Amino acid sequence: MTKTKQHVFSFGDGHAEGSAQMRAVLGGKGANLHEMTQLGIPVPPGFTISARLCKAYLAKHTLPASLRNEVTQAMARLEATSGRRFGDATSPLLVSVRSGAPVSMPGMMDTILNLGLNDVTARALGEQTNNHRFAYDCYRRLVHMYADVVFALKPEIGADPIETATERMMRARKVEREIDLEPDDLRELVTTIKSVVERQSGRAFPTDPWDQLWGAIEAVFRSWQTKRAIEYRRVHRIPDDLGTAVNVVAMVYGNMGEDSGTGVAFTRNPSTGKPELFGEFLTNAQGEDVVAGIRTPQPIGTMAVSCPQAYEQLRQTAQKLESHFLDMQDIEFTVECGQLYLLQTRSADRTAQATVRVVVDMVRESLITESDAVARVDPAQLDRLLHPTVDPEADLDVLSVGLPASPGAAVGQAVFDADTAVARGATGDPVVLVRRETNPNDFHGMVAAAAILTERGGMTSHAAVVARGMGKCCVVGAKEIHVDEASRKFLVNGREINEGDWITIDGSNGRVIAGKAPLITPDHGENFDQLMHWADKFRLLRVRANADTAEDALRALEFGAEGIGLCRTEHMFFQGDRIDTMREMIVASNLEGRRAALSKLLPMQRGDFAEIFRVMDGRPVTVRLLDPPLHEFLPHGDDEIAQLAKRIGAQFERLRNFVEVLTEVNPMLGHRGCRLGITYPEITEMQAEAIFEAACEVAASGVDVRPEIMIPLVAHNEEFLRQAALVREVAERVFAQRKRRVEYLLGTMIELPRAALTADKIAGTAEFFSFGTNDLTQTTFGFSRDDAGRFLPHYIESGILEDDPFQTIDRDGVGSLIQTAVKLGRETNPKLKIGICGEHGGDPRSIAFCHETGMNYVSCSPFRIPIARLAAAQATLHQRKT
Amino acid sequence: MTKTKQHVFSFGDGHAEGSAQMRAVLGGKGANLHEMTQLGIPVPPGFTISARLCKAYLAKHTLPASLRNEVTQAMARLEATSGRRFGDATSPLLVSVRSGAPVSMPGMMDTILNLGLNDVTARALGEQTNNHRFAYDCYRRLVHMYADVVFALKPEIGADPIETATERMMRARKVEREIDLEPDDLRELVTTIKSVVERQSGRAFPTDPWDQLWGAIEAVFRSWQTKRAIEYRRVHRIPDDLGTAVNVVAMVYGNMGEDSGTGVAFTRNPSTGKPELFGEFLTNAQGEDVVAGIRTPQPIGTMAVSCPQAYEQLRQTAQKLESHFLDMQDIEFTVECGQLYLLQTRSADRTAQATVRVVVDMVRESLITESDAVARVDPAQLDRLLHPTVDPEADLDVLSVGLPASPGAAVGQAVFDADTAVARGATGDPVVLVRRETNPNDFHGMVAAAAILTERGGMTSHAAVVARGMGKCCVVGAKEIHVDEASRKFLVNGREINEGDWITIDGSNGRVIAGKAPLITPDHGENFDQLMHWADKFRLLRVRANADTAEDALRALEFGAEGIGLCRTEHMFFQGDRIDTMREMIVASNLEGRRAALSKLLPMQRGDFAEIFRVMDGRPVTVRLLDPPLHEFLPHGDDEIAQLAKRIGAQFERLRNFVEVLTEVNPMLGHRGCRLGITYPEITEMQAEAIFEAACEVAASGVDVRPEIMIPLVAHNEEFLRQAALVREVAERVFAQRKRRVEYLLGTMIELPRAALTADKIAGTAEFFSFGTNDLTQTTFGFSRDDAGRFLPHYIESGILEDDPFQTIDRDGVGSLIQTAVKLGRETNPKLKIGICGEHGGDPRSIAFCHETGMNYVSCSPFRIPIARLAAAQATLHQRKT
Repeated sequence: MTKTKQHVFSFGDGHAEGSAQMRAVLGGKGANLHEMTQLGIPVPPGFTISARLCKAYLAKHTLPASLRNEVTQAMARLEATSGRRFGDATSPLLVSVRSGAPVSMPGMMDTILNLGLNDVTARALGEQTNNHRFAYDCYRRLVHMYADVVFALKPEIGADPIETATERMMRARKVEREIDLEPDDLRELVTTIKSVVERQSGRAFPTDPWDQLWGAIEAVFRSWQTKRAIEYRRVHRIPDDLGTAVNVVAMVYGNMGEDSGTGVAFTRNPSTGKPELFGEFLTNAQGEDVVAGIRTPQPIGTMAVSCPQAYEQLRQTAQKLESHFLDMQDIEFTVECGQLYLLQTRSADRTAQATVRVVVDMVRESLITESDAVARVDPAQLDRLLHPTVDPEADLDVLSVGLPASPGAAVGQAVFDADTAVARGATGDPVVLVRRETNPNDFHGMVAAAAILTERGGMTSHAAVVARGMGKCCVVGAKEIHVDEASRKFLVNGREINEGDWITIDGSNGRVIAGKAPLITPDHGENFDQLMHWADKFRLLRVRANADTAEDALRALEFGAEGIGLCRTEHMFFQGDRIDTMREMIVASNLEGRRAALSKLLPMQRGDFAEIFRVMDGRPVTVRLLDPPLHEFLPHGDDEIAQLAKRIGAQFERLRNFVEVLTEVNPMLGHRGCRLGITYPEITEMQAEAIFEAACEVAASGVDVRPEIMIPLVAHNEEFLRQAALVREVAERVFAQRKRRVEYLLGTMIELPRAALTADKIAGTAEFFSFGTNDLTQTTFGFSRDDAGRFLPHYIESGILEDDPFQTIDRDGVGSLIQTAVKLGRETNPKLKIGICGEHGGDPRSIAFCHETGMNYVSCSPFRIPIARLAAAQATLHQRKT
Repeated sequence: MTKTKQHVFSFGDGHAEGSAQMRAVLGGKGANLHEMTQLGIPVPPGFTISARLCKAYLAKHTLPASLRNEVTQAMARLEATSGRRFGDATSPLLVSVRSGAPVSMPGMMDTILNLGLNDVTARALGEQTNNHRFAYDCYRRLVHMYADVVFALKPEIGADPIETATERMMRARKVEREIDLEPDDLRELVTTIKSVVERQSGRAFPTDPWDQLWGAIEAVFRSWQTKRAIEYRRVHRIPDDLGTAVNVVAMVYGNMGEDSGTGVAFTRNPSTGKPELFGEFLTNAQGEDVVAGIRTPQPIGTMAVSCPQAYEQLRQTAQKLESHFLDMQDIEFTVECGQLYLLQTRSADRTAQATVRVVVDMVRESLITESDAVARVDPAQLDRLLHPTVDPEADLDVLSVGLPASPGAAVGQAVFDADTAVARGATGDPVVLVRRETNPNDFHGMVAAAAILTERGGMTSHAAVVARGMGKCCVVGAKEIHVDEASRKFLVNGREINEGDWITIDGSNGRVIAGKAPLITPDHGENFDQLMHWADKFRLLRVRANADTAEDALRALEFGAEGIGLCRTEHMFFQGDRIDTMREMIVASNLEGRRAALSKLLPMQRGDFAEIFRVMDGRPVTVRLLDPPLHEFLPHGDDEIAQLAKRIGAQFERLRNFVEVLTEVNPMLGHRGCRLGITYPEITEMQAEAIFEAACEVAASGVDVRPEIMIPLVAHNEEFLRQAALVREVAERVFAQRKRRVEYLLGTMIELPRAALTADKIAGTAEFFSFGTNDLTQTTFGFSRDDAGRFLPHYIESGILEDDPFQTIDRDGVGSLIQTAVKLGRETNPKLKIGICGEHGGDPRSIAFCHETGMNYVSCSPFRIPIARLAAAQATLHQRKT
């Protein structure tokens, strides 16, 4: 630190050395105090110590001498502005010392009020305000706060010695609150507390206000490193080296009579976004009275009666702040003897609904531009506008909290298997499917259920992925729950939930709630549509949906999908009794048997594709050929095998043996994807036939069909070449039969490192790439998403990984493979169409990456499409700026 | 083809237009005929048609006119040299037309002899040789061969109509062999055959010798594309576009009397390599008589009696050929009336033992240099010198053929579980462990067994990998075998092998043989050591061993290991009853429980490490920390669980639940590697303690200890940093306690794509990288080596993949990741030590890749060390050349 560099910045009386631009130095609170002062808004005078000193202080644990000089000078200016003197026996200046980081961390760091009080100044304050009780109460609070914050006296466990002493005094005087003690008792209490402090901490409460000040400044700096502050920064991704500034501000008091008071105001309604002054005010009180719950504040309108002038001034100030900061503000203020003082202003927290309304209104009010509006809304917030939520006001009987796997909330009767879900669901009562974990055999039950709950699995387990795809709320990995599928019940913390009992699943927060919790149905309304419309004007990325059925496709269109980026054909096989035909195909002992079963599946698939093509008229539909290992379709356990044997007329022993033989050690890396189509070309043939026949059929009725056929799990160009040749051959055959051609694209998933590394070769024939980032993440990290639950949460908590790579693309590893593939692919084929269809397609930070990488589109589950549209627009805006 | 380009090359009478250098044009056989002619060695005159024409002919199916001109001219020269005329009624010239590719493909393509015979010339030949029977037999053979080769008359199924006609004639004449027919009968037979040919093929046998010649030339070209030739090239990696040359050579006859004969000679003994003329000779015979089994050839020495001059000439020619070609030759020759003619010379096939002896002898004889010797031996051949083999002469009762997973052969009694293997093994009788497939629980049984046989699994299944590591012979994936572990037997093609029955396992060829087959124990001897010594002079790569025990380490040293590149600590936990202590650790419900069990494991590990360090005195020992998922250590099935519960005093239900909970969907991608050490740091701590305590202890006794500690399965630098910090902390603690420091290195496996892609970061702290190419291949391809058996063989057979990527490094994908990692790693840390410890470390082509990539060492199983030493030397020599 050189002396020439300024570290202390004064404000007051309409002049300020800092401004809102100096947030990095002054912290958010400090910068806004300076800015407000410059705007002529009444702010108590004070000064701010630079956040840049915080890091230096934490390294050396001593304040630089230059700082002491600067503070002394700033204090002299403050004395001049306030007309009071620090430590003065007649008109003492009292100050608050507050933290204020460059990024908001509400309540995370320390504050000390009433600094400057000692036996002499306390008496002076009592005389000046004609309120000795008030003065000694301030003094008592200072000593207590100082002991806690500076001496760290408050024990982690056991009784606070200061509180014990205070309670002893209150018992002796038979009063219930400190403020009810007589002034002399309060003075005596201060003395008692001071001796407790000295005894317990070995250090005396400093009587010299300057000593108090230095101690407080150091303590505020130190509070940057408290456990809770560090944890907060970790959760909110705030860099550790920002540090906090320190604001030293002259005290003002709202408890100086009926024309005084304190309050909090929002410039707009934070729940609805409605443009109205909203907040609370308490006459003749200090902020701490509200915090301590001694008195209850009144709606802000009451201030118009008690302090009409100050209210009017506040209203005008609120407007001034909004048009200056161009955002809805959250204001703390005090009225001292009719005079309004603003203590803080900052951008206000608000609900998702308010967020959208405020930006749309502000555009209409010409405060901000359309691009500002688009840039300001956090896409993650939109989720809350698209799904029902549990009423935040309701009293809830929370049974357990698991992982919030798919957002929204739903009420239903617990059921424990898929068939029961379908049967009960058919009666009209909503059901919640509860399983230890799900597998593809549960698919029809998941379709029938209103919500899904599993005991095991992580955010990317089967249940989570499928539920998100369906936009169905889901909680997974609720470990406290013990599901007993045989007895049709689950146990949780000593309680038992039986089949048919009502439960509520809160997929946004992971809560499992007993009974029917009240839900709030969102109405995203016009403002939302307006915002989306603006977003669409800016974004370059196309947004497609992952949709497996015509129903999904319809929903996707409602949310604004511009095509289907992933239609998983395997889900079609789980519907109704198709699964048995599929199983017949799998267990057939020869090619003819397989062909016979496939010929039964063909018309079903053709029908499905035709419906989807019709719905998506004029938009691309990417169909992925069969992907999962065949054993996923087979029954588990002797009972199910025996039933199937009866249904399809197979021998039980043979069937069981078949199931056993097909079982894999690592199914994720097994016989699946195009490996199926290569070893059983007849499967690819049937699927291609179904696609092209459906396409020709639908095209014949005037629909604009744009199929894009996608070969999954390609590791080597030769795999792609052979499957592609087969598909083209089938296409020509069908076109010849139907006497009609349909334009189509043929491409591949890039979901294995080897495919990315050899993308130049694959792009020689492939017309599009679609990154399957789920599998690419699994293979690049060597993490099985089904098993990562045993270490991944620990990795994220302990900071080994900053993010869950299954939620947000890992730029260094997976991202670098994607960039390599895009580069190599476009070098071979500059026209290559590139998209993403993994879960990451609906994650805003991953979408930003896709934009930067130069992809053409993202594809995500229908419910995430608005999020993707917004995130894509923001990515464009962000790039324009940088 | 321009006319200026020569396509036909004549030789004869000491002059030749071609030479040995022109192999690509003349083919191997042709080039050597030209070369021998130039050397003055007696070769019948002839000419060679360029292999370059083969491809052009196959594309157009017509011979260029220019070729006809050239052949006509060459034939005129041949007539002049031989003094006979093609188609002449008095002194007819007869020729053979033989294929000869640039790369040897013995017996793969077609040959026609005696070309030029028709009714007129046959009579002339009979008169000239005074042997009409011989002349008509030649004629008969020509027609038969011509029909087969040119007309492709021989049916794939059913009777050959020519043979049927021939047999009818023999039955009528009551003779057993064609040659026993009277000359007139033979002539009649020729007429019959010709009409059969015409009737069956619709084409008449051409009477014009020129027509015969053109037909034969085209047929030889076409034979490049026969199924067997294509298959042979695929197996031997011969490019498809080489094509074959055609050799047209004047016929000579060894059946012209007692001073005539035919033979095959090797310039050295092909079994032992001993420098002696070795081969067979048959007086007064043609080569076909030997092939047809009509007469049995005699040892070559007999020729010294029957044709002493020719024998002496042969002996001298053999020496001449060797000193000219600088390699052991395989010679075909004919003696016609005392005159020696060489028909072919080529490098001789030989046994592994002979290979080594020949090159070493040739260096001693100053024929070749040490580097020639090293470059010439195929490293794959060495395997046969290091393991016992089944006597190739023995009559075997082969039950089935599976995959040759680990070379060598062994005889033993079949047993069906690991415990029985140990129990029976202890009685001294060798046993063969037969399982459906193995898992780590079978480890002690595998140690006790002489050989391992499994019904399932591929070349990189657990059984295969472990067996290769132990140098134990093993056959896996013997699908015809049905193992019934419960009944302690296996069924194979209707036969039953029970526990205790003797079987023989041939791991080099995949054979499962009933009973005790006779084995040959190799003696690699001095020549081998000499060759290895030369190899060591050339190679730059160091060669280390994968060795888990002191016993392995000793064996590795014997084979020339320069260190241990991979010591897998987990194998230590499977020994004796340690497994139970390990299990106690795993099922402990808290940290204390785990620590208690670990403290019991500590002295065992310390002891193991101390032994290994002592053995490896002065050489590096790379210890990999615990890698496999914990469930691999747990028992399977209720019975085993109950037994364990009793032994370690745990509750059965709890234990079973634990086993179930630890089960993973994709264990390969699950909770293993450093993920264990991160979630249970106490395991890493115990292992580090054991290593450093052992190191200090052994160093105290004067041993030079060089531990290198390896963190497995790192995906992210942060994982490495944390584990490295923990290891260093333990090291300092142990050094302080023992008052002794030991130098050590700390590095990581690079076995996940993400580690390779972020190697620059990891190299910031890591002191070495060791590529775990097994896992890197699994994740890069997305292939589970345990499950790939269902598609990988098909991939290789059908040419989707050229090689099994688990055997030979896939350069395009896995290789590019390795190159990236080496580049990034060395950029950060130029001193970074880099090696490989996957299975590929013992594969010659992969070793060449490691050399090119600039690695410091390869590590492989002890038995593959000689192979690696040789391959590493060859890689250096190859690089020097290019």
